[in-house]
Amino acid sequence: MATQIETFPNPKPGRRYVITHINPEFTSVCPRTGLPDFGTVTVRYIPDQLCLELKSLKYYFLQYRNQGIFYEDVTNRILDDLVAACNPLEMEIITEWNTRGGMHSIIQARYERPKAKEQQ
Amino acid sequence: MATQIETFPNPKPGRRYVITHINPEFTSVCPRTGLPDFGTVTVRYIPDQLCLELKSLKYYFLQYRNQGIFYEDVTNRILDDLVAACNPLEMEIITEWNTRGGMHSIIQARYERPKAKEQQ
Amino acid sequence: MATQIETFPNPKPGRRYVITHINPEFTSVCPRTGLPDFGTVTVRYIPDQLCLELKSLKYYFLQYRNQGIFYEDVTNRILDDLVAACNPLEMEIITEWNTRGGMHSIIQARYERPKAKEQQ
Amino acid sequence: MATQIETFPNPKPGRRYVITHINPEFTSVCPRTGLPDFGTVTVRYIPDQLCLELKSLKYYFLQYRNQGIFYEDVTNRILDDLVAACNPLEMEIITEWNTRGGMHSIIQARYERPKAKEQQ
Amino acid sequence: MATQIETFPNPKPGRRYVITHINPEFTSVCPRTGLPDFGTVTVRYIPDQLCLELKSLKYYFLQYRNQGIFYEDVTNRILDDLVAACNPLEMEIITEWNTRGGMHSIIQARYERPKAKEQQ
Amino acid sequence: MATQIETFPNPKPGRRYVITHINPEFTSVCPRTGLPDFGTVTVRYIPDQLCLELKSLKYYFLQYRNQGIFYEDVTNRILDDLVAACNPLEMEIITEWNTRGGMHSIIQARYERPKAKEQQ
Amino acid sequence: MATQIETFPNPKPGRRYVITHINPEFTSVCPRTGLPDFGTVTVRYIPDQLCLELKSLKYYFLQYRNQGIFYEDVTNRILDDLVAACNPLEMEIITEWNTRGGMHSIIQARYERPKAKEQQ
Amino acid sequence: MATQIETFPNPKPGRRYVITHINPEFTSVCPRTGLPDFGTVTVRYIPDQLCLELKSLKYYFLQYRNQGIFYEDVTNRILDDLVAACNPLEMEIITEWNTRGGMHSIIQARYERPKAKEQQ
Amino acid sequence: MATQIETFPNPKPGRRYVITHINPEFTSVCPRTGLPDFGTVTVRYIPDQLCLELKSLKYYFLQYRNQGIFYEDVTNRILDDLVAACNPLEMEIITEWNTRGGMHSIIQARYERPKAKEQQ
Amino acid sequence: MATQIETFPNPKPGRRYVITHINPEFTSVCPRTGLPDFGTVTVRYIPDQLCLELKSLKYYFLQYRNQGIFYEDVTNRILDDLVAACNPLEMEIITEWNTRGGMHSIIQARYERPKAKEQQ
Repeated sequence: MATQIETFPNPKPGRRYVITHINPEFTSVCPRTGLPDFGTVTVRYIPDQLCLELKSLKYYFLQYRNQGIFYEDVTNRILDDLVAACNPLEMEIITEWNTRGGMHSIIQARYERPKAKEQQ
Repeated sequence: MATQIETFPNPKPGRRYVITHINPEFTSVCPRTGLPDFGTVTVRYIPDQLCLELKSLKYYFLQYRNQGIFYEDVTNRILDDLVAACNPLEMEIITEWNTRGGMHSIIQARYERPKAKEQQ
Repeated sequence: MATQIETFPNPKPGRRYVITHINPEFTSVCPRTGLPDFGTVTVRYIPDQLCLELKSLKYYFLQYRNQGIFYEDVTNRILDDLVAACNPLEMEIITEWNTRGGMHSIIQARYERPKAKEQQ
Repeated sequence: MATQIETFPNPKPGRRYVITHINPEFTSVCPRTGLPDFGTVTVRYIPDQLCLELKSLKYYFLQYRNQGIFYEDVTNRILDDLVAACNPLEMEIITEWNTRGGMHSIIQARYERPKAKEQQ
Repeated sequence: MATQIETFPNPKPGRRYVITHINPEFTSVCPRTGLPDFGTVTVRYIPDQLCLELKSLKYYFLQYRNQGIFYEDVTNRILDDLVAACNPLEMEIITEWNTRGGMHSIIQARYERPKAKEQQ
Repeated sequence: MATQIETFPNPKPGRRYVITHINPEFTSVCPRTGLPDFGTVTVRYIPDQLCLELKSLKYYFLQYRNQGIFYEDVTNRILDDLVAACNPLEMEIITEWNTRGGMHSIIQARYERPKAKEQQ
Repeated sequence: MATQIETFPNPKPGRRYVITHINPEFTSVCPRTGLPDFGTVTVRYIPDQLCLELKSLKYYFLQYRNQGIFYEDVTNRILDDLVAACNPLEMEIITEWNTRGGMHSIIQARYERPKAKEQQ
Repeated sequence: MATQIETFPNPKPGRRYVITHINPEFTSVCPRTGLPDFGTVTVRYIPDQLCLELKSLKYYFLQYRNQGIFYEDVTNRILDDLVAACNPLEMEIITEWNTRGGMHSIIQARYERPKAKEQQ
Repeated sequence: MATQIETFPNPKPGRRYVITHINPEFTSVCPRTGLPDFGTVTVRYIPDQLCLELKSLKYYFLQYRNQGIFYEDVTNRILDDLVAACNPLEMEIITEWNTRGGMHSIIQARYERPKAKEQQ
Repeated sequence: MATQIETFPNPKPGRRYVITHINPEFTSVCPRTGLPDFGTVTVRYIPDQLCLELKSLKYYFLQYRNQGIFYEDVTNRILDDLVAACNPLEMEIITEWNTRGGMHSIIQARYERPKAKEQQ
């Protein structure tokens, strides 16, 4: 799904700084029950040459609205898609899910660009 | 009791990422007074090949509902059972207990897989 | 179940004053799923000649721990039992239930002693 | 849409008591932008002969997930549907909506059964 | 400034229900110091035949961004403009202002349509 | 115990205004278990000719530190003592108690001077 | 001290609306101990022809900074001074004081203009 | 005073895990003024062979109820007593005290068993 | 824009200490939509010879009020301007933005003076 | 001003433990405007041979009540004075200031005794 995510040139490419986007309105569908899941998705990254464009990021998240996918899977897939889209130095995805059956869950996945690639 | 906990294959086995499940509705029985204890159990782990299946985890916790067991004991037993069930790279169990006699308690226990085993 | 609830003489029977007991550790069982429900029960009443004894009230609530009963039903039953036990001038029961299926519920039921009876 | 809402007999039909169901996971679609809206729907009512069955209420709300409808409209429609389903003595619907364009909205609508009908 | 505020037909004109729009991003300019003021504006009303259209309401508030006006004045002016725009049965404007000189202020103004006019 | 409570002349005796003193450090002893109880005591009153002097009020509360007394009893006794001390137009005592056995309690008692006495 | 409080003409004199100014930085001196007291003063009023000017109100409060005065006294004096300054239809003063000796206090005093005067 | 503190065998002696007991109802007496002090005592430790028994810990704290002792002194004394009672690998005592004279205090003291002793 | 920022001599130039200024009233304009953005800007720095003068800092922020600029850009520009103004040992800028389209963002950028320059 | 600060012998001089005193009622005067500033001062230190006596610390802070001094200056001066008074191993002063002109500030300064001096 990564093709739809637009980027723009990092306005300060030489500085390691941190960008965080928080979407408290993420919803997908539980593949087991067919019922909707609700959660908050946090995207935190250190850009290299490209920054994620906010509006296209919002539309990217909307694609999951009627899709059946598990917590662990969607968290890693978002990380892979967004890394592919903007090739950051580092990125972390945190998904926090509403209570289901009296329990709630949090999934945190990180990407760090291999050092060799960073020095290029 | 670990036999009932089901698992599913980790969708991203090569990445060290963190899964947290929080159960604010844990209840067991105080072996001394026979009265119920109430608490929140947090399971946080880095999966290797297997992830804990949420519904069976809920049923695992339900088995303690009418069982007499002390705070320190149940915390360590949950850790042992869940490590046995999914063989994670790391796991932490935190139990936070409601006030009894004007005091409340928190127990935190961690498992880290020995390095030798991890490199296999 | 009201027979087990003990009372003691109201220390100030001529004054209309309000007593509130809050039990945030109520648990019963959903008759449909067999899974536990968790909630907070608030008992608020204006005593006449008798006050509810706290320890026996706690044991009264414990009787529901493994009993299957719906929200609306248990709220009205607690009200009936506690009115029968202490014959108050007024009583209100509020039950607030943990999230199930993404929704949570609150039930409020009131008893007011008929005026004729109060003047006796 | 009211046909899908199931009910069950009020376990205490002679007593005026209050039932509240809160759904913090309501979502529909803005008819103007096609983007999803998110909100919390509160249903508060005094039952007469029938109570709303929780699971079917949840499925009723799910029907709005991909439907385009304005705040004011959906609030009044839910009130009409639920009144039709359980014929209560009183009912109030409150919808609280997430921020859009820096503003958020709350809509509150009430139904009270005409006195003549209540005395029948 | 009321000319810019658009309305749409009330979808349930016969029912007295309450609509609240909250704008926590209001800003105007202090006529004395020339420095910006910041506040939250709450619009609460019972519509008659017309509802306030949200987007045009947002643009209406934006007109104050660089305008010098006192707290008491802007609150009453918003009330007058919005009453003129949608002719409601009742309307209340509440403005809550950020701290200035160690003090903060709240202004609340209400409009109620004269009974004679309501019965027409 | 009311003899120790000092008063001073109300500086504005003709105006009905409200004075509230909140003591979050009240402690007494449970007569049944011999263990300490902890609570917050709120005194709210409309003075007539006399106001309660704060320091002597503090010492009055300290007298309960090692005294065995039930919630309902101590609340009414404080009300009686303070009414006797300053003869107010109205007074309310609220005691809120820390959790014991998973439950906590609130007791509220009010005094209103009979109208005949007030008109003297 | 009321002479220093400036006023400005009410911009909407025909409408009964409510103005609230909150000063969380009030400080005076305890006449008994010579130590400073700290509190929050809330002024809430319905203006008639005059509104309180904020800056002069701030300076009015500053006059108490090194003055010895009791809670009950200062509350009533502020009410008298501000009523004298702007002759409102109604005014309420609430003073909430920081903890002293483990207790804290709240004083609330109200003024309502006699009906005869209002109709003039 | 350490003689009264009972212990029980650590159910998982080989694992370094953390036990926290929080007592928000600690009270002692200020040696200077004779007035009571109130605070929260947190005991956090890594057990070796022995765990602190909760009920006897509660009675241990009760011994300070009418004892005059300074903040810094009581914190260190509790640490010494509890270390003597259960010989832990590590222990930390935190005491947080209610406001006195407008200020409040926190004392934190730690014990770490010397490495030589731990390896035995 | 850095020319307008005034400074004053650091009163304790030999000590590495931290100064934080928080402006919760920052507003600029989105270059894409022309609509205002609102956010909180935090400036945290370790001064060398110069401190930022607060009033001129406020006026510096006011310059963005009607300027179109993206989140990432404005954060880095503020950092560059303030570093140029006071030449600190370290500085961090954090901008936290209000929700737009259901998402909100945080940008954090840091400057650390090169060691060689610091030793001069 | 350090001469007025009294100390008492550290009851546990061999142990590195942390003492924190928090004064949320600090007030001084802005040298530029002559208006009062309000803030919270936190003193955190590791004592060596001497502890700060609380009552004299309170009187020390009171000396700033009518003194004109800037945020950065007063923070460093308090640190210097208190280090001089009790010669601690480490000390940190944090001052957090109320909003002025829509911004608020936090200053943090630390002292660490040089290692040579500590080993003496």
